[in-house]
Amino acid sequence: MSKPYKGFEPKWHLEKPPKNSYRSIFKWGDPEFNKVPKETLYKMMKEIFNLTDEDFKDYSEPLGLEEVKFDRPINLPKGFLEKLKEIVGDEMSTTDYDRLSVAYGKTMYDVLRLRQHIVENIPDVVVYPENKEQIEAIVKLCTEFKVPLYVYGGGSSVTRGVECMKGGVSLDMRKNFNKVVDFNEIDQTITVEAGMSGPKLEETLNNAVKLFGAKRAYTCGHFPQSFEYSSVGGWTVTRGAGQNSTYYGKIEDIVIAQEYATPRGIVKTEPFPAKATGPDINQIMMGSEGTFGVLTHVTLKVFRHMPENHYKFSYMFKDWNTAMEAAREIMQCECGRPSVFRLSDPEETDCMMRLYGVDESPIAGMLSSLGYKPHQRCLFLGFTDGEKGFCKNIARNVRKICRKYKALSLTGAVTSAWEKGRFNDPYLRDSMQDFGIMTDTLECSVTWSQMEHVHQLVREYCHSRPNTICMTHMSHCYPQGANLYFIFIARMTTLEEFVDYWTGILDHIQKSGAAISHHHGIGKFFAPWLEGQIGTNQMEIFKVLKNHFDPDNLMNPGGTLGLDLEEKDKKFIRPKW
Amino acid sequence: MSKPYKGFEPKWHLEKPPKNSYRSIFKWGDPEFNKVPKETLYKMMKEIFNLTDEDFKDYSEPLGLEEVKFDRPINLPKGFLEKLKEIVGDEMSTTDYDRLSVAYGKTMYDVLRLRQHIVENIPDVVVYPENKEQIEAIVKLCTEFKVPLYVYGGGSSVTRGVECMKGGVSLDMRKNFNKVVDFNEIDQTITVEAGMSGPKLEETLNNAVKLFGAKRAYTCGHFPQSFEYSSVGGWTVTRGAGQNSTYYGKIEDIVIAQEYATPRGIVKTEPFPAKATGPDINQIMMGSEGTFGVLTHVTLKVFRHMPENHYKFSYMFKDWNTAMEAAREIMQCECGRPSVFRLSDPEETDCMMRLYGVDESPIAGMLSSLGYKPHQRCLFLGFTDGEKGFCKNIARNVRKICRKYKALSLTGAVTSAWEKGRFNDPYLRDSMQDFGIMTDTLECSVTWSQMEHVHQLVREYCHSRPNTICMTHMSHCYPQGANLYFIFIARMTTLEEFVDYWTGILDHIQKSGAAISHHHGIGKFFAPWLEGQIGTNQMEIFKVLKNHFDPDNLMNPGGTLGLDLEEKDKKFIRPKW
Repeated sequence: MSKPYKGFEPKWHLEKPPKNSYRSIFKWGDPEFNKVPKETLYKMMKEIFNLTDEDFKDYSEPLGLEEVKFDRPINLPKGFLEKLKEIVGDEMSTTDYDRLSVAYGKTMYDVLRLRQHIVENIPDVVVYPENKEQIEAIVKLCTEFKVPLYVYGGGSSVTRGVECMKGGVSLDMRKNFNKVVDFNEIDQTITVEAGMSGPKLEETLNNAVKLFGAKRAYTCGHFPQSFEYSSVGGWTVTRGAGQNSTYYGKIEDIVIAQEYATPRGIVKTEPFPAKATGPDINQIMMGSEGTFGVLTHVTLKVFRHMPENHYKFSYMFKDWNTAMEAAREIMQCECGRPSVFRLSDPEETDCMMRLYGVDESPIAGMLSSLGYKPHQRCLFLGFTDGEKGFCKNIARNVRKICRKYKALSLTGAVTSAWEKGRFNDPYLRDSMQDFGIMTDTLECSVTWSQMEHVHQLVREYCHSRPNTICMTHMSHCYPQGANLYFIFIARMTTLEEFVDYWTGILDHIQKSGAAISHHHGIGKFFAPWLEGQIGTNQMEIFKVLKNHFDPDNLMNPGGTLGLDLEEKDKKFIRPKW
Repeated sequence: MSKPYKGFEPKWHLEKPPKNSYRSIFKWGDPEFNKVPKETLYKMMKEIFNLTDEDFKDYSEPLGLEEVKFDRPINLPKGFLEKLKEIVGDEMSTTDYDRLSVAYGKTMYDVLRLRQHIVENIPDVVVYPENKEQIEAIVKLCTEFKVPLYVYGGGSSVTRGVECMKGGVSLDMRKNFNKVVDFNEIDQTITVEAGMSGPKLEETLNNAVKLFGAKRAYTCGHFPQSFEYSSVGGWTVTRGAGQNSTYYGKIEDIVIAQEYATPRGIVKTEPFPAKATGPDINQIMMGSEGTFGVLTHVTLKVFRHMPENHYKFSYMFKDWNTAMEAAREIMQCECGRPSVFRLSDPEETDCMMRLYGVDESPIAGMLSSLGYKPHQRCLFLGFTDGEKGFCKNIARNVRKICRKYKALSLTGAVTSAWEKGRFNDPYLRDSMQDFGIMTDTLECSVTWSQMEHVHQLVREYCHSRPNTICMTHMSHCYPQGANLYFIFIARMTTLEEFVDYWTGILDHIQKSGAAISHHHGIGKFFAPWLEGQIGTNQMEIFKVLKNHFDPDNLMNPGGTLGLDLEEKDKKFIRPKW
């Protein structure tokens, strides 16, 4: 796995979580795979958090190895389960484990609760639908019996999006609802069931020649960090973004048609690339996060798969302001857009250099002597996607602009190193948290003219807490702005401590004039801030739509998108922009 | 102007329309400018329509030179005009001419009515608002007095979008509501009042250095054929597209924020390039065509102005199917997208060659001898926009793909010829119509896999009418499909004849599986088809929004978007796609 430690190595918990354990629910990703911090990172954490090796000799947090068990009777109207059985047969479950396994997502708030055996807001029954018709029947049944309905896709929500606040049914889409419905090579589209996972979709498209007799291989172009444990349906209803979105666009640019089962009936959009036939219904349904109905089928644009055209680049800038200027110029120069585009601020750059073991190599000193100093220098990396000449031209322009802003080329090697970790960095979280070190992220959307202000204000707050790391990067870039990502790492062990800090960060994101989410969505966790973000008149539009589709508030109820929040539970920080 | 005729030349009406005349309302564009068909085109028309020079010795249609005059009393609630005056002072009018001048758009249906002095559906009063606050007050006033409210932007609607079916107020935005509100060079955005005209916006951006002290010149990237007489507000509420949309996108891709005055209050969206904060309110408001409220401010993305990077190209293909294949390959190869991208079918190609006078030159014969035969060959032309290397790479890929499909390069000269006419071809309409030759267009959105079917079915219908020209081209292209444009030229003189034929074409567009509008919008003319297009459940979403914003149906009422149509007035052709 990673390089062996030279000195003391913490007693990492590397065993596969026991079957039916709490840990098997909250642990990220592949049960057999673990990732631990490199020794340099471990040393840094000890320094920053005032810890010694002694603190890493035993776990400070519950490991959650116990079998899931709780006493929460099933509370459904009489006759409901029988009717449900008529629809799905045995493809349903009421075991403690199955119920809990679809109740939580992957924010630290979820993980902490599971470690501490805090069982809240679970469904009464979990259903594994096999096709669209079953889902339509279930929506009808729930509407008839007034039973709340939730959906669990990949399970990587960090917004408490899937949590079953009112009990009822949760549709676990992973097991049976993940098939290809149609592949259209002429139009370059694929239609899939909403439970289709990221990796299965990508594998399908990469193998289109073999599977569909296609002329070439395709890619979905959508690779969120949660890729391996995310679903097409989740991407779509939350307005997700992949790490390659600077070229491919966010999911709302990629989805071309959708079908939903709502209490009001089926909503189906047409697969035209553009129209002028009234408001855009695709864009009304995306972002509804399950509150209007259940997404069943999704038609996505697909792209030619040409990984041979990944021109990788990485550069070191002398400081954040210069780097931001350069990033903006690349976005605005109209040379086409790189696919991955990631600019780390000084604190993240320092951490990454530790993470990749560069900080103790001669490179670190060399960089300093050239004027790229620690705590100031900023790492920028990325690669291209598209046709060969298109990609070459972007790489050429990136080089030209980076040089203009006195950045030093570090070649594509740093990008390759980043690529290795891009989907498995989340595994680090569990290893570190066993020792009380918590990490989580918040992200937001920012215009270029507000970028420096948002970066400064939010980080100032983050650092008002002693002994806390706050790394920031910009990714998902546009000519008009970018997404800013705040990753904090801190020693904290209680739910309250986590929620207080997280809340403070979000307050400051909103105060500083950013949009509270670029691609994680709102769910129940961010909901109190939403009306402040978009304004009351705009919130009314969501409520009107909600009331139309779901007058009995049965679809993902309990705070999602703030649709059924009481006034007292809302925040009203109205950002100036 | 154009080349003198060698033989007989029709007695074109070239005088500036008399002041306050019907002709001054329906005549396209600049009152001082006219355009007449080249002699070759004139000859062709005689042939096709079985006419002789004799038929062109005098006008067969009313020229509309008379002064506008009618007897339509003003019908407004008591006290309303006084209140209106409190808001806008003298910036309002109740003269016959001013009322009629904002009642019609530019479809042949409008022109025919005006030629025949058919005065229908005019407002009671025309108002020239000066700022957003006045519009907000007017919306409130109309809501209070239950007076219908219409908006007139550039006046180039071909959907009866501006027609005041229920009388009331029409806001004429051209005169006073056309100022720049904010220019933000860092974010590359401009905020303007909705009445801003296309040319004024473009001129402002081209002169950003002088006007705003900007670092460089910018362009709006949006050039519909109606450019010179269109408004930013009209583009936005109808989901318009410019001729350069293949690179710049449709208006819904360019608009980043909007503000509306609705009976329910102000709706304002945020200027973030992307968000995950619920459904996309920008995309809910765009396409509402004035039925939710009045658009006041619009923030648009702007682009670097680099006309020196227009790489022009034109090619001749041997036949339509091959040309379509090539067009699709260009769109799907991910080399970046040309800006103007226009592929004419054989009939349009033949007409264009006449229009540009090529058909009698040696080139025509040469083309034939090389296998590019009349009635089969297809002209493809375009140019690039963007950074130099980006543009060069596109031109290179276009060349490569065109060669692969055996197309013959005609250099950029044909494109230059097309550019000269691109905004003034509409002037031809009036000259020809004075002699009873009518021309109009219908356009639709089509997936690649349906392209051949739609092209064939619709044209079959068009040609079921004898002596009729039907030219077709593809423009506004995407990896998943394109827009198809049907231009018909026919000798017809009555409203009924026009409407019957027009209706038949639209029926066939819808039957064939296309979307009934890619960028003209729906208005009142296309409204009966809309519910068939999008489906009843989807139509319900529009109605719910309408009822929320405008429960008394005062905003552009009388059929717009089919929101207040009776069932009997709807068509229900449900296309298969």
